[in-house]
Amino acid sequence: MSELRHFCGIAGIYSKQETNLPYNLFFPLFALQHRGQEAAGIAYRKEGQTVVYKDLGMVSTVLSRYLDQPKRSRVGIGHVRYSTKGGNRLENVQPIHVTCNKGEIALAHNGNISNVDIIKKELFDEGSIFQTSSDSELILHLISRSRRESFRDALIETLERIEGAFSLVMIHDESLVVVRDPSGFRPLYIGEADGKVVAASETCALDILGISTYREVEPGEIIFVSEKGLHSEKLKTKRPLRQCVFELIYFARPDSSVFGVNVHTDRKRMGAALAEEDKGSSAVTGAGAGAMGPHPVGDIVVPVPDSGTSAALGYAEQAGLPFDFGLTRNHYAGRSFILPTTGERELAVRMKLHPVRDVIRNKRIILVDDSLVRGTTARNLVKLLKDAGAAEVHLRLCSPEIRWPCFFGIDIPTRQELISNHHDPSSIAELIGADSVRFLPVHRLRETREAPDRFCYACFTGDYPLTVPLPESERTGYPRDTAQQELI
Amino acid sequence: MSELRHFCGIAGIYSKQETNLPYNLFFPLFALQHRGQEAAGIAYRKEGQTVVYKDLGMVSTVLSRYLDQPKRSRVGIGHVRYSTKGGNRLENVQPIHVTCNKGEIALAHNGNISNVDIIKKELFDEGSIFQTSSDSELILHLISRSRRESFRDALIETLERIEGAFSLVMIHDESLVVVRDPSGFRPLYIGEADGKVVAASETCALDILGISTYREVEPGEIIFVSEKGLHSEKLKTKRPLRQCVFELIYFARPDSSVFGVNVHTDRKRMGAALAEEDKGSSAVTGAGAGAMGPHPVGDIVVPVPDSGTSAALGYAEQAGLPFDFGLTRNHYAGRSFILPTTGERELAVRMKLHPVRDVIRNKRIILVDDSLVRGTTARNLVKLLKDAGAAEVHLRLCSPEIRWPCFFGIDIPTRQELISNHHDPSSIAELIGADSVRFLPVHRLRETREAPDRFCYACFTGDYPLTVPLPESERTGYPRDTAQQELI
Amino acid sequence: MSELRHFCGIAGIYSKQETNLPYNLFFPLFALQHRGQEAAGIAYRKEGQTVVYKDLGMVSTVLSRYLDQPKRSRVGIGHVRYSTKGGNRLENVQPIHVTCNKGEIALAHNGNISNVDIIKKELFDEGSIFQTSSDSELILHLISRSRRESFRDALIETLERIEGAFSLVMIHDESLVVVRDPSGFRPLYIGEADGKVVAASETCALDILGISTYREVEPGEIIFVSEKGLHSEKLKTKRPLRQCVFELIYFARPDSSVFGVNVHTDRKRMGAALAEEDKGSSAVTGAGAGAMGPHPVGDIVVPVPDSGTSAALGYAEQAGLPFDFGLTRNHYAGRSFILPTTGERELAVRMKLHPVRDVIRNKRIILVDDSLVRGTTARNLVKLLKDAGAAEVHLRLCSPEIRWPCFFGIDIPTRQELISNHHDPSSIAELIGADSVRFLPVHRLRETREAPDRFCYACFTGDYPLTVPLPESERTGYPRDTAQQELI
Amino acid sequence: MSELRHFCGIAGIYSKQETNLPYNLFFPLFALQHRGQEAAGIAYRKEGQTVVYKDLGMVSTVLSRYLDQPKRSRVGIGHVRYSTKGGNRLENVQPIHVTCNKGEIALAHNGNISNVDIIKKELFDEGSIFQTSSDSELILHLISRSRRESFRDALIETLERIEGAFSLVMIHDESLVVVRDPSGFRPLYIGEADGKVVAASETCALDILGISTYREVEPGEIIFVSEKGLHSEKLKTKRPLRQCVFELIYFARPDSSVFGVNVHTDRKRMGAALAEEDKGSSAVTGAGAGAMGPHPVGDIVVPVPDSGTSAALGYAEQAGLPFDFGLTRNHYAGRSFILPTTGERELAVRMKLHPVRDVIRNKRIILVDDSLVRGTTARNLVKLLKDAGAAEVHLRLCSPEIRWPCFFGIDIPTRQELISNHHDPSSIAELIGADSVRFLPVHRLRETREAPDRFCYACFTGDYPLTVPLPESERTGYPRDTAQQELI
Repeated sequence: MSELRHFCGIAGIYSKQETNLPYNLFFPLFALQHRGQEAAGIAYRKEGQTVVYKDLGMVSTVLSRYLDQPKRSRVGIGHVRYSTKGGNRLENVQPIHVTCNKGEIALAHNGNISNVDIIKKELFDEGSIFQTSSDSELILHLISRSRRESFRDALIETLERIEGAFSLVMIHDESLVVVRDPSGFRPLYIGEADGKVVAASETCALDILGISTYREVEPGEIIFVSEKGLHSEKLKTKRPLRQCVFELIYFARPDSSVFGVNVHTDRKRMGAALAEEDKGSSAVTGAGAGAMGPHPVGDIVVPVPDSGTSAALGYAEQAGLPFDFGLTRNHYAGRSFILPTTGERELAVRMKLHPVRDVIRNKRIILVDDSLVRGTTARNLVKLLKDAGAAEVHLRLCSPEIRWPCFFGIDIPTRQELISNHHDPSSIAELIGADSVRFLPVHRLRETREAPDRFCYACFTGDYPLTVPLPESERTGYPRDTAQQELI
Repeated sequence: MSELRHFCGIAGIYSKQETNLPYNLFFPLFALQHRGQEAAGIAYRKEGQTVVYKDLGMVSTVLSRYLDQPKRSRVGIGHVRYSTKGGNRLENVQPIHVTCNKGEIALAHNGNISNVDIIKKELFDEGSIFQTSSDSELILHLISRSRRESFRDALIETLERIEGAFSLVMIHDESLVVVRDPSGFRPLYIGEADGKVVAASETCALDILGISTYREVEPGEIIFVSEKGLHSEKLKTKRPLRQCVFELIYFARPDSSVFGVNVHTDRKRMGAALAEEDKGSSAVTGAGAGAMGPHPVGDIVVPVPDSGTSAALGYAEQAGLPFDFGLTRNHYAGRSFILPTTGERELAVRMKLHPVRDVIRNKRIILVDDSLVRGTTARNLVKLLKDAGAAEVHLRLCSPEIRWPCFFGIDIPTRQELISNHHDPSSIAELIGADSVRFLPVHRLRETREAPDRFCYACFTGDYPLTVPLPESERTGYPRDTAQQELI
Repeated sequence: MSELRHFCGIAGIYSKQETNLPYNLFFPLFALQHRGQEAAGIAYRKEGQTVVYKDLGMVSTVLSRYLDQPKRSRVGIGHVRYSTKGGNRLENVQPIHVTCNKGEIALAHNGNISNVDIIKKELFDEGSIFQTSSDSELILHLISRSRRESFRDALIETLERIEGAFSLVMIHDESLVVVRDPSGFRPLYIGEADGKVVAASETCALDILGISTYREVEPGEIIFVSEKGLHSEKLKTKRPLRQCVFELIYFARPDSSVFGVNVHTDRKRMGAALAEEDKGSSAVTGAGAGAMGPHPVGDIVVPVPDSGTSAALGYAEQAGLPFDFGLTRNHYAGRSFILPTTGERELAVRMKLHPVRDVIRNKRIILVDDSLVRGTTARNLVKLLKDAGAAEVHLRLCSPEIRWPCFFGIDIPTRQELISNHHDPSSIAELIGADSVRFLPVHRLRETREAPDRFCYACFTGDYPLTVPLPESERTGYPRDTAQQELI
Repeated sequence: MSELRHFCGIAGIYSKQETNLPYNLFFPLFALQHRGQEAAGIAYRKEGQTVVYKDLGMVSTVLSRYLDQPKRSRVGIGHVRYSTKGGNRLENVQPIHVTCNKGEIALAHNGNISNVDIIKKELFDEGSIFQTSSDSELILHLISRSRRESFRDALIETLERIEGAFSLVMIHDESLVVVRDPSGFRPLYIGEADGKVVAASETCALDILGISTYREVEPGEIIFVSEKGLHSEKLKTKRPLRQCVFELIYFARPDSSVFGVNVHTDRKRMGAALAEEDKGSSAVTGAGAGAMGPHPVGDIVVPVPDSGTSAALGYAEQAGLPFDFGLTRNHYAGRSFILPTTGERELAVRMKLHPVRDVIRNKRIILVDDSLVRGTTARNLVKLLKDAGAAEVHLRLCSPEIRWPCFFGIDIPTRQELISNHHDPSSIAELIGADSVRFLPVHRLRETREAPDRFCYACFTGDYPLTVPLPESERTGYPRDTAQQELI
């Protein structure tokens, strides 16, 4: 139930034999649907031309109509995305396709360029025109304007100029190009089977094609796949590895591997860490904190499905408490159904989540979820459980308090909107009606990592690994920022 | 992942105040979507006329376009359904609406009339014309042809003539009529809140409207709701209570109450019974049966999501084994996406279910699901798990072997198609590549019931509670029928 | 621009060879689109079953999705229709398909049964249920309830009981049945080519299939087409021939033959008769009547496209006046476009019709159209022409004044709404801003017929050829009815 | 029935009061639908942002969904278009919207830039990227890259660099900009009413909004409309006026004024000139040429509706022959219906045009149409008429023989495909089965003009008013080119 949104998922295929590329791209994009549900698109080469199909809507809606006819092609890329502030503008749906002095290029991008403002100004000054409001278009402008003659040289020059998060798949003429930024913010995997090289944001997109041999695209790696085979290079830019820890906390699918670990297992580890926090704590915040008994907090561990399920299982195992489904999720509650009027927020929650009264009644519930953004959904959930007879509700979050915006691909609200910039856990508990609220502290989250320094925690700490264009107004004014972190 | 299909879910509303009936019906029908995903419809009264909207498609697709305008109405009914042998014929979508000498009647029906052949022949002879291929239309013919003058008398005469399963909601002129057959095959609940009386197949449909005070419609009960209030009668037909045990095994939502028990809790009880069977068994069938260790069969309990989840949790708790999500389900894999060609069955399964390798690898898996029909999905699932590294896969089903067709509302394939009519568990294990297969025996299933005689087990035993039109060809020829049941 | 609406057009095909019936039905129904634009449907036999596809919408929208696959069938029927008072109810879309003791029957009906009330009451009393609000369903009830054993005998009994207008195509089991009522109110043609027998409302529907050998189905004729060939019978009911003269005035396509004459030529004849009226008249009503000059009324003849085009040509030739296109019609202005709000009626007219100023300016316009119903469109048209510079506008209608409802298949508004029940031509001219208005008198219209008694003029005269259920309130109160006809 | 295609129609609105711009743009675009039926789009300013809606499809389909909500805006533009060789690519649908150093610009373009190759090469070299395959994008690149600081200066610099046909409407920030190229190839009108300034390709688009005071945008004129009012300038580039004569022959709507004349009247004049040709000719080409009688060629003048209607009327009046509708057009035969397979070309023609046998039978038909491109449709039409009983068919075309491609906005096939590059009229007559074929000679066409030198006749003569990128292969090899022109 996280209110965070991701920007996108990408996939690219190079096939030695001519094949129906739209059909082959459909499945990995379908498997990446969770990374972006508002628009989908593909580009592929056919008879020396680049064909692009893209529209607002889910993968099955947008792409299924293009699958039936045999399309003989060797290379194609695809994209799923959430809309961002720019809104549901069709012009921002990817892949972007251009013709320029380096040839025909189609691009699909996962991430965000953090030095966008400087580059955009320069391009503006030089007379470039922008047809989208996405920063992905910058990449194509830079490639085209590069004085280097070859596409490869121009691409490398471009990648060395841009900063931030960029997992990319591109078609250049008849070849596939796969790129991951030097910090490795976003995941990107590449595998091969049956004469097809496939790159995708998560391993689940390779699994669906039956590809079980794959590896991570390395940070700073550029891979060219063409008739001549696969050729890999490394960017010269050296940057510390800063993988987005939120991919593991929330975004990626539990059955995927991301940054070398299985997501489900990693979440169980976070849940276990949270359980240890609760056990060890002599001073749990909130009303129910003083409760005595076999477990200091609860009788039963209940996940918020599906975002909190893995972590809840880890919590329960570690705490020795029963795990049970106190909430069921209605999976028909997708994006297409009518939204109840604003006065009926409770109804909206009831359309998605129902309490199982038998499980809930008279129990002290440890409710596990991934993160807390604004707190509105949590308040409705707590009410749902209490109405269903819960004795106490203790909300446990597998992530630290979110206080800072992200410039590397996550759509986090402004600092003003983030509840943790205004309230400490006990105050949040009061606001949402819970008996207690606890976050996984940053140091604990780090302890669950094998190599903690390889991750980015900037949305919790404000400690950005690269220079970011944080507006002045967002920098100050939240005195909790430095102080409260230790309190927990 | 059961391959069984249900016929439908129903809902009816009577509101003391005029209200937007389509809007009010939308939510309970949405909550009943799992009972029928292929068609949806509503009928309601407006300015002295009955308006009907119905179409093939999901609730959100079919109904959302009719919600926006205020429609001042007091009474309406709705229906969701699976298509049956008759196919996706629009003419069979309910509610059915007719005008006759008893007034205007709209009807939505959950169940099946078992003496349909006798009645249909009689109506044919008398010159009735049939515009649908559903047995629900019979009810309206009988009401209209009754010599009794009032609608009430004609309805009662009709209900005393028909046999089988019939939970009904009807509009007659400006009143709502709610009926449940004397055997109580299908669930039906009625509740009231905010001046609205609401009837629906499951309690989850009342919950979504915030109605927490409700009761079961009693078997053989007829409830008339009108301006004059609520009036209840009982049919004189006396029949033993025979509630469909499959509602609890598979059809109903885990958060619903059905036949007086919470579905999730009941399934956990079935899972626990299955675990006891495994513990007590000295001769587990199949290859992995002889395995030694702390548990005679497995290391870990994995549900087939979502159908086996509750039972798997009950199994794990009873067995003292870890419960984990070795399979994740892609909830985008609804009905709208393109089907891979028949040669790509494995791909179809991969689009829905993915193994979590970290959980599966080198483990002896106890895979829990609700039931086994043809066995094709199970074979693909076992392969998926073994390919992901499972050491052994032991399939456990929370229902006995299905061997007989249902005449009371479930769409079971012919006896010929049911795997358990041709193979015993060890032979099935071999067929699907599992290390063992075990069903919950009928006597065990009965033991999990408080009042075991109040349920129908005919699909397992062939012991039908009413005379049924079982074709001669289906009666004999499966020698396993009587013998094998004890073997397990 | 007539505001009258027709009920429908029908087509039926029997093919000696198995063929794609939906594809073959598409073209004649497409050619009959002008007879009903709000719904379309087909029924055909396939592998011993009757398949029905029908929906609200135009032929191309509703049917084109069903054409691509080869469907091996021999017999099928189709229907296009306008919605009537019953509204856009899907349940009223034809063909109607039923199963009964006479077998499977599908029916498409053009016309109206005039003794519907008596028959419906009887069927109600006997317990029939009605699932549509159309009178076509009656026919099927009567066939099914007939004590005669064979379908043929039951059909004939039924056709002898019903009165009114009924051109029918039916599928009975594997045969096609074609029927035209004894009064011959509605046209119906039958032809044969390439091993296919095709029946359709107008000859244009046969032309499109390349069938140039055809004949009218005779009034009172029943044709059975099956494997055994074509068999024709005549009903015993004797009734005078009463062909609907409005088919020729407005409904049928100009390139069709209807009732044995070409529609375009017939309309030219009406226009010529109107021109003679104008020439001979010494006292033309309205302001411009006294105008002197080579022609007593106008300088130029302008049709309201397309309804008045043929008649205008006939008028111009007879009057020796130039014919020109002073109004152009925007053929994109179909049914799909957004309707301007009610306050913008003029805009609605401008979307359909534009004046050609060069033609109009300073001219005395003789504006020719088919008929006048409420007068609202005419008022807007006259304004359009005057705004474009017309010196005078003289409206000429090729039909007499419409004052009575039709019970034989045309959807005429109530008597209250018909402008000619409240105003004589000079008063109408004043109301709509025209300089004069003239109708073709009934006696003149009759003179344009070869056999004038073979037509029905009831909507002009109130002299119905059969007993009709005219409500008491509609019978009296319009004193102009008898008197004014001569005035003109 | 011309097989020529136009590129587009445009409209722009500036409103002094805030208004619903999409609603206001809908009507003029709807009136311009005939100029482009394959895609439609609008752009308008709203709260400081440019909103763009565009898609493949007709105006009513694409735009009607955006009209309902009040959108407070002052300026907007719109576009309708045919697809061109580039295919149905969504990316080519206009308006194009970009952000650049001159601000936000949206552009809709009617015409073709003839020095596109030179400019595109230059832009490529400088690193511009192209997201569309249309030449309209060039304009925006040039504006952005201009060193002149203000948008106005950059625009003027750009317009002085590009050559060819360009009627433009643009939004720049909150102002509307209207441009017509110095040769005036394409029409463009501007008018004002009710506080709204409206520019559009034809006057019919102003008429529909009730605007009757308008003027042509002058060749080389630039009009800026903003809060400050209307400001007009003239480009310094001097070029001879070369209005496209085909706008009058075929493209524009008969009720429009274009290049200062009413289209319908102009076509009648062309038809009259053609009649004079026939009268004066002592040696009509083709088989029927020697026929005797009151008129050297025919008995009756029949238009190919609707393209030949106006000219046929002019021909008939001049020749003193009867004009009649020997062919009716089915206006439901739009773009949405299923296309018969290629083997059924005759069926395709029959779906659009039907002969009226009564009119045709035994007559010598003078069939009048606008132009002849490939000749395939004409052949089918002649066959249709002869099958319907025509004694002779003499095809008369209101345009000279088309032999050269257009570089100023008309999509003419290659020279190879143009029938008049391979056959003279008598040879064409033989090919299409007509008794004779006659074109309006260029000198006669010129004689129908008041100022013949103000028009472009390049598609007939190859005498282009500007340098054009005619491929070498198209320049030679058609020896008829110089010789045959005089023969006629």
